[in-house]
Amino acid sequence: MMEGFALPQPIREGEDILLYLDSKRTYLVRVEKGKSFHTHKGFVQLDDLVGKEYGTRIISSMGVEFVALKPTLRDYVFKMQRKTQISYPKDMALILMFSGVGPGSRVVEAGTGTGALTSALAFYVKPAGRIYSYEIRREFVDSALKNLKRVGLSEYVDLKNKDVTEGVDEKDLDAVVLDMATPWLVVPHAYSALKGSGVLVSFSPTIDQVVKTVEALKEKGFVDIETIECLVRRMQVERGKTRPQTLMTGHTGYITFARKALEQ
Amino acid sequence: MMEGFALPQPIREGEDILLYLDSKRTYLVRVEKGKSFHTHKGFVQLDDLVGKEYGTRIISSMGVEFVALKPTLRDYVFKMQRKTQISYPKDMALILMFSGVGPGSRVVEAGTGTGALTSALAFYVKPAGRIYSYEIRREFVDSALKNLKRVGLSEYVDLKNKDVTEGVDEKDLDAVVLDMATPWLVVPHAYSALKGSGVLVSFSPTIDQVVKTVEALKEKGFVDIETIECLVRRMQVERGKTRPQTLMTGHTGYITFARKALEQ
Amino acid sequence: MMEGFALPQPIREGEDILLYLDSKRTYLVRVEKGKSFHTHKGFVQLDDLVGKEYGTRIISSMGVEFVALKPTLRDYVFKMQRKTQISYPKDMALILMFSGVGPGSRVVEAGTGTGALTSALAFYVKPAGRIYSYEIRREFVDSALKNLKRVGLSEYVDLKNKDVTEGVDEKDLDAVVLDMATPWLVVPHAYSALKGSGVLVSFSPTIDQVVKTVEALKEKGFVDIETIECLVRRMQVERGKTRPQTLMTGHTGYITFARKALEQ
Amino acid sequence: MMEGFALPQPIREGEDILLYLDSKRTYLVRVEKGKSFHTHKGFVQLDDLVGKEYGTRIISSMGVEFVALKPTLRDYVFKMQRKTQISYPKDMALILMFSGVGPGSRVVEAGTGTGALTSALAFYVKPAGRIYSYEIRREFVDSALKNLKRVGLSEYVDLKNKDVTEGVDEKDLDAVVLDMATPWLVVPHAYSALKGSGVLVSFSPTIDQVVKTVEALKEKGFVDIETIECLVRRMQVERGKTRPQTLMTGHTGYITFARKALEQ
Repeated sequence: MMEGFALPQPIREGEDILLYLDSKRTYLVRVEKGKSFHTHKGFVQLDDLVGKEYGTRIISSMGVEFVALKPTLRDYVFKMQRKTQISYPKDMALILMFSGVGPGSRVVEAGTGTGALTSALAFYVKPAGRIYSYEIRREFVDSALKNLKRVGLSEYVDLKNKDVTEGVDEKDLDAVVLDMATPWLVVPHAYSALKGSGVLVSFSPTIDQVVKTVEALKEKGFVDIETIECLVRRMQVERGKTRPQTLMTGHTGYITFARKALEQ
Repeated sequence: MMEGFALPQPIREGEDILLYLDSKRTYLVRVEKGKSFHTHKGFVQLDDLVGKEYGTRIISSMGVEFVALKPTLRDYVFKMQRKTQISYPKDMALILMFSGVGPGSRVVEAGTGTGALTSALAFYVKPAGRIYSYEIRREFVDSALKNLKRVGLSEYVDLKNKDVTEGVDEKDLDAVVLDMATPWLVVPHAYSALKGSGVLVSFSPTIDQVVKTVEALKEKGFVDIETIECLVRRMQVERGKTRPQTLMTGHTGYITFARKALEQ
Repeated sequence: MMEGFALPQPIREGEDILLYLDSKRTYLVRVEKGKSFHTHKGFVQLDDLVGKEYGTRIISSMGVEFVALKPTLRDYVFKMQRKTQISYPKDMALILMFSGVGPGSRVVEAGTGTGALTSALAFYVKPAGRIYSYEIRREFVDSALKNLKRVGLSEYVDLKNKDVTEGVDEKDLDAVVLDMATPWLVVPHAYSALKGSGVLVSFSPTIDQVVKTVEALKEKGFVDIETIECLVRRMQVERGKTRPQTLMTGHTGYITFARKALEQ
Repeated sequence: MMEGFALPQPIREGEDILLYLDSKRTYLVRVEKGKSFHTHKGFVQLDDLVGKEYGTRIISSMGVEFVALKPTLRDYVFKMQRKTQISYPKDMALILMFSGVGPGSRVVEAGTGTGALTSALAFYVKPAGRIYSYEIRREFVDSALKNLKRVGLSEYVDLKNKDVTEGVDEKDLDAVVLDMATPWLVVPHAYSALKGSGVLVSFSPTIDQVVKTVEALKEKGFVDIETIECLVRRMQVERGKTRPQTLMTGHTGYITFARKALEQ
């Protein structure tokens, strides 16, 4: 009756750790022989961590304590973000849960971008599922592949350097997830590529994109069309001083969900 | 090249469908021989659906069109809710994504309640992972079991009729997820039960619960402690009339995340 | 040094009181000789209140305590609302403060509707200022007049049964405040009617109205154009149980502000 | 019947103008003989504006267009803010409208701070009303006086260099408005100082302050106690690109309102 049981594994060379200083300062670092990691709080000898348990505290050369955490999917996704792009794990979470994508799902995604959403999808459909990710810009495909390899999920993803507005190759998909400028152009292709009752998800920053996409969905015969936005606010929690944080992200994008109804 | 590929399967007797009338009126119904399903828009002959593809449209005795959708995890979770309890798939989504729980994770949850969150966790850790769900009230264990069986996830869950504030039996867990009145009482047990770097998540409606829990987490040596709240707002999308919905859920609860750092 | 000083005045016959039972149950009642006010918690003898100070507690025939409060502007505004209309004192507050409307301002408003916003504007521009309120539907003019008389502000308002999209009669206005279906049609008239640097405010439920209005404002040479939305959430405050309220109003409308720049 | 009518007055020497470049760059400037105002977009000859109408466009030495707007209360309030303090015209607006403070009201305020809220209150109670503003720090009294003079409202305000937690000198007040660290200590004094049915308002950043204040209010016999928070989100409006702004202020403070019921 040991299924699913796993002894905690020690930190090994070649693995990533998340060096945690405080909630605002964390560093995603690969543990390599003879390497040290330098911060403004001194350097940390990464060798010292090999064989230790994740969660170990380590003192830097300047006497400051760090913790060697095991990176989660969210850590990877967050670190994949480019400076110019809004990170949105909150939206990924809703896209996943509200679409029903899960173990074994076959999903088309477009565009790949940095591969952040691709990684999230791949993480939850593995091992039996598969992500087919369309991206028109060659350089994005390359960097997404690099990111997917780092997080160990590339084997569950087909990266396709193709324009999804020209067509979707796959059939009988469980879901199509669109995070691109012109999602409405993909709606007819998505309809053909989805199983009956399959889910289309579209993430768009502007209202205008949402309106065009919803119109295309209605015209094509999708049902249960729903558009939401999600606001996450952090709390500062300390007895006598508890309050929401002053600054928050006021908008990332709207998420639209719809399900394929078959033609009469 | 067939890995992960699955032909769309027809609706079979004994399966659940989600009968969709419109976004506000959907019905989770079991397809049974000779049964019909009655609504204020007429009845639907469920027999007629057997062998059809999911997504099929069906006309009721009053000439109204329904769609026979395949229920997603979120549909089940939503229908599991008791009238007196806030449904919160949005919170489940964030709990999942922000905690790193995924395929293969071993998770303790308390309390089980209706089994809604239990189902969501089980869905994403299967097949290799496992949920150990503590619930002090016998009748809740029973109804949760019924719900888990309906959604086909009971084999991934150990339902335990036990008081989690008295201790956690499991060791080396990836996560502990608390949705109960006194989460702070479980913090020391959770610390012992978690792997190094393992994640504790607590969902609480009141600020007072959050403050007590965060204090217990700090005292015990958890790091990366973060409390958030999530607001989801629906949009009414129609060219010329697009606007956010008038009424929204203003609060379900605060979600606190923390990771176990080992003692020095 | 008595300027602005006023002895608290007793409740007099013919005045309104706000009978307060709890935060959800308040009644705006006129004190009249020999009248009693009936509630499901018994009746209150209004005669008994004459000559008493505002804030007096009074016991109903069923032994339940009420408080005889002095109605504020917000109480009147709230009670003026029709059932089918969203009440929005929060939006009125922002319209007032962000537009600079205050003592002495001369303001055109359209449409009058129930007179709720009219009352708020009149309350803050009196005694030297004036509200010119346009309303196309005769029956609304009549009911607004009744409401304005009740709240004692009718002498500061010109109610005009006219279509504001056909023109604005006034000149050199400090502000034009639009709460109507087609605000963009009034933008050119408002430009002519405003003083240089005068403020136009428009309240609209839909995005589409906002886009059209902002386009008209830009074309006409308005500057400092700003659109906001305002969310107000109530808190339930009680030691050990403090939390935001479950239900909230998610949307009333967007408010757009702009200032008139003169032509070059 | 010309009361309230005012011909638009030209810009005069010694008056303030709000030089508007764009929505993010505005400058509150005093028009003085022979003075020019320098920006990174060139300088503007202020002399040239004297005698012109507000709303006039003026070209800088670098050929960039500015608009000479008439400052509103909100502009002054915004410019009074210190860098380290959150500006909150939205909260001032709600404090005003929800408390019923208006023309003729007599209000105690504490603490004065920069005088921003003092100015807002004074603007709306003038000319017959009066603000009594308590401030314990001498230097704040001085800078508030300077600010009140600039905005032309000092004659409606008594600035008192006193600790309001030791008592309130005034009687029969319409409202007491608290924006200070320990509002609960003032609740008993406020009760004595208010008229029956008078309103207490308290603005506090933390939940803990709110809980203590509400407890003090309940104990003292205040009724209709209500705590709210207000979120304002800006929209970027442009056909084809309309969306909420990415960053927003997630929290300034909670506002609590209560009314004085007389003792039985």
